[in-house]
Amino acid sequence: MLETVDLSRSLKKKQAQNAVGELMCSIGEMQRHLSERHTAVVVILEGWAASGRGGIANRLLLALDPRGYSFHYPETPCCPTGRPSLLPFQRLIPPVGRIAVFGRSFYDRAWRAAADEVFLRDVAAFERQLADAGVLVVKAFLHISREEQGKRLKKRMKDPKLSWNVEAGDIEENERYDERAAAAEAMLRATESEHAPWTVIPATDESYAAVAFLTCVRDAMSAWLERAAPVPAPERRASRTTDAVLRSSMMTSLDYSGDLDGDAYEKRLEALQGRMHELGIAMMQSRLPGIVVFEGVDAAGKGGAIRRLTESLYPRCYDVVPVGAPNEWERAHPYLWRFWKEFPDDGKLVIFDRSWYGRVLVERVEGFCGERDWKRAYREINEMEGHLASTGVVIAKFWLQIDRDEQLRRFESRRDDPERSWKLTDEDWRNREKWGLYQEAASEMIVRTSTAQAPWTVVATNSKKLARVKVLSTIVDAIEAAIAGNGGPKTAPEPEKKKKTDTEKRKKA
Amino acid sequence: MLETVDLSRSLKKKQAQNAVGELMCSIGEMQRHLSERHTAVVVILEGWAASGRGGIANRLLLALDPRGYSFHYPETPCCPTGRPSLLPFQRLIPPVGRIAVFGRSFYDRAWRAAADEVFLRDVAAFERQLADAGVLVVKAFLHISREEQGKRLKKRMKDPKLSWNVEAGDIEENERYDERAAAAEAMLRATESEHAPWTVIPATDESYAAVAFLTCVRDAMSAWLERAAPVPAPERRASRTTDAVLRSSMMTSLDYSGDLDGDAYEKRLEALQGRMHELGIAMMQSRLPGIVVFEGVDAAGKGGAIRRLTESLYPRCYDVVPVGAPNEWERAHPYLWRFWKEFPDDGKLVIFDRSWYGRVLVERVEGFCGERDWKRAYREINEMEGHLASTGVVIAKFWLQIDRDEQLRRFESRRDDPERSWKLTDEDWRNREKWGLYQEAASEMIVRTSTAQAPWTVVATNSKKLARVKVLSTIVDAIEAAIAGNGGPKTAPEPEKKKKTDTEKRKKA
Repeated sequence: MLETVDLSRSLKKKQAQNAVGELMCSIGEMQRHLSERHTAVVVILEGWAASGRGGIANRLLLALDPRGYSFHYPETPCCPTGRPSLLPFQRLIPPVGRIAVFGRSFYDRAWRAAADEVFLRDVAAFERQLADAGVLVVKAFLHISREEQGKRLKKRMKDPKLSWNVEAGDIEENERYDERAAAAEAMLRATESEHAPWTVIPATDESYAAVAFLTCVRDAMSAWLERAAPVPAPERRASRTTDAVLRSSMMTSLDYSGDLDGDAYEKRLEALQGRMHELGIAMMQSRLPGIVVFEGVDAAGKGGAIRRLTESLYPRCYDVVPVGAPNEWERAHPYLWRFWKEFPDDGKLVIFDRSWYGRVLVERVEGFCGERDWKRAYREINEMEGHLASTGVVIAKFWLQIDRDEQLRRFESRRDDPERSWKLTDEDWRNREKWGLYQEAASEMIVRTSTAQAPWTVVATNSKKLARVKVLSTIVDAIEAAIAGNGGPKTAPEPEKKKKTDTEKRKKA
Repeated sequence: MLETVDLSRSLKKKQAQNAVGELMCSIGEMQRHLSERHTAVVVILEGWAASGRGGIANRLLLALDPRGYSFHYPETPCCPTGRPSLLPFQRLIPPVGRIAVFGRSFYDRAWRAAADEVFLRDVAAFERQLADAGVLVVKAFLHISREEQGKRLKKRMKDPKLSWNVEAGDIEENERYDERAAAAEAMLRATESEHAPWTVIPATDESYAAVAFLTCVRDAMSAWLERAAPVPAPERRASRTTDAVLRSSMMTSLDYSGDLDGDAYEKRLEALQGRMHELGIAMMQSRLPGIVVFEGVDAAGKGGAIRRLTESLYPRCYDVVPVGAPNEWERAHPYLWRFWKEFPDDGKLVIFDRSWYGRVLVERVEGFCGERDWKRAYREINEMEGHLASTGVVIAKFWLQIDRDEQLRRFESRRDDPERSWKLTDEDWRNREKWGLYQEAASEMIVRTSTAQAPWTVVATNSKKLARVKVLSTIVDAIEAAIAGNGGPKTAPEPEKKKKTDTEKRKKA
């Protein structure tokens, strides 16, 4: 895509000024229309060092109503696997009606360093997910020749007013121009798509580049607006339909028998909690992040299992994220956004009490989202968890299951205990009425989202003691395997600069 | 406060276990009651290195419903002045109904390093503001002797499983124990208050300390709940009442005459914008943060003035934050919280299109808040800006003023121009009806909140050209003075680790 670009294109200054003025006007107008249509827009401006991204980005910002945009220039984190992470960018995805302009994005690493096919595949999947969620994605790449780049860098270095704008890697980029051009080419090809196409812009002449960039943004906006009533994509058949095995529900074949006597339990629990305590600290030290998901039947013992886990951990090592219905602000974003915000940046264990699987459980059963949405979610979730795993996040997922009689016993016991009756709500009784539908949804979820990197562990929890030991030992095994696979904390990748150990958590009540 | 503490206090293990169990139960119950009463709670656990804060904090976390709390261990930033900043903590203040537990807080620096009377005064003011906003603040300090600390640190360093928990400064803290104890003592005294009292806990015996800490939290919660119907504080008379000078409105004495011819304007503007461009980069390089506030009469030209400023800046150097009515989530926090989130961490210029002054302008005039609230706001705002200035933030505030006839001309011109008519709303006309009330509120605001560190600049903007030049030159002067006062970018304080240049902005539409 780069080689066919005519780098000699230019515009007379006066001509460019007029064009820019007109383009800014119509972009401002279209911003209002897109906002009225509740469209979120992501603009990504990528390109060579010294290709003039800063000045050109500002032309766009000046065209926009400040009440409707944010400009981002996020740093790219280094993950334990050395792969870049999409999370910092995902968290900045704007809500409906707003525009996010990225002066630096996940593409920065995608061709400058450290990116591989796995990452590019994750990027492509992420952009498809954005499009599916109704986000308009505009991508432009500013292209200049090796000679032009060299000339500009030299000029900048000589001028004390400009030298701040030459970064350490820029000179190297110029020296290894051909190699980087090949990497950029590969990146552009791997992430070219109908829903998020690239526009490569010849940027030798700054005026030309500004006009071309603004034109690209305007055209993408106006094409979007012209599709007045967005045509829904044809409903795809799920690749595997809910078959007889699923319908009969895998849960019924679970073995609910067995128990652990008090002493054996105490001893085993103490050993596991001791090991967990050490592993929590090892994760913090080696910056190994982890995610534990708890889903399950109401009253199956999620709270107790989580408690046995957290009481073993040092408070800095973990966060508990309880998940309820999304609020208005969260609903204005793509479905998974509120979870992106909670995922660990650093060596922390984040424990989800319910999770993104609500989409294919409660939202599916209660009809809170369309069939298209929850059917699409299996793939989106697998892609998301796959990306997390590829950046080195340890993932353990638990489905806690009791049989229907045991649930009734537990509900009644809660109801009759004044100290615990607040835990039991009318909703619990209502959900119980839909036992069959929830079991079917859970079974399909487990089949469709058990992957090698993020397998489900189904735990029969009629015996709470057995269940708690099973949960803890599964988590311990997963973390130990990750540390061993990593070569252990000692050989973890260059520590880089230390990041904030505390991320702002806004758990919703 | 430290010397009178009996460090020999201890509890038998069994006795402590029972007490902890009971305390956890009643804390959990009170958490529910506080949540129903829409109270936000801040728990601060401070103390000597190796005093056992981690383990004791976790006892509290285990007592709490995870849906209702967050645990924080934020890093303390280094500001250009070397003073610590309250911002990272202020951003973590929980909304109503929730609890934030701080394993590390602004107090960490307040006695370990870098804090002075100015900072302690700011802390005390901040805690008073929290109490005024209905936030329950609980503070405990874990105290151990020099010998005990030395023993614990030695033990930790010998044990590879514990040595991670010895930080660089801990040994030094033990060596300089007496000096630090005096600093802690000073800190405790300076920030002791009726609304946020300290509890110093002897922590030689861990069981005793756990029981004492949980007791302190429970007692604070139950005392709060017992004040069933919170008694409003007696309405204080404002220290200076709106006097005749104010009532006559300082605006009427403004000189609205004068203008600048086109050429002179272009030349002056270009020079100022060029200088502004350089200063934006200088601020980024020297990590000097800045805040510019634009308030003014409707149609006085805020948008145009902001535009002349932003078009001169490199996009990474600034953010524009448009301020409208707070949303539900923001209203669940203390009034200033949504602004704390937007203030610059780093060398960025954050431009506010309207601001926290809404409290004493639109909220006062339209009755969106009580008289007590907006009267209290003058002091709160001065304290907030004073703290920002003390951490090295440059502050420039502009009130843009046109006379009433000019406003009518501009409204009519907008109304009649199809391309700009969307800018004019019914609300603008309604506000115009209340011209006198708004002018009175603005006059009082300017008198009460013009401080040496954060002065208002009132600009008569009947001539847009003169006004834009005045605004730009005022900002340029303020930044240049700050850089000169700082000793310039070169001698800025130790750069420390580079922080994220991009903070997640969630500007509300």
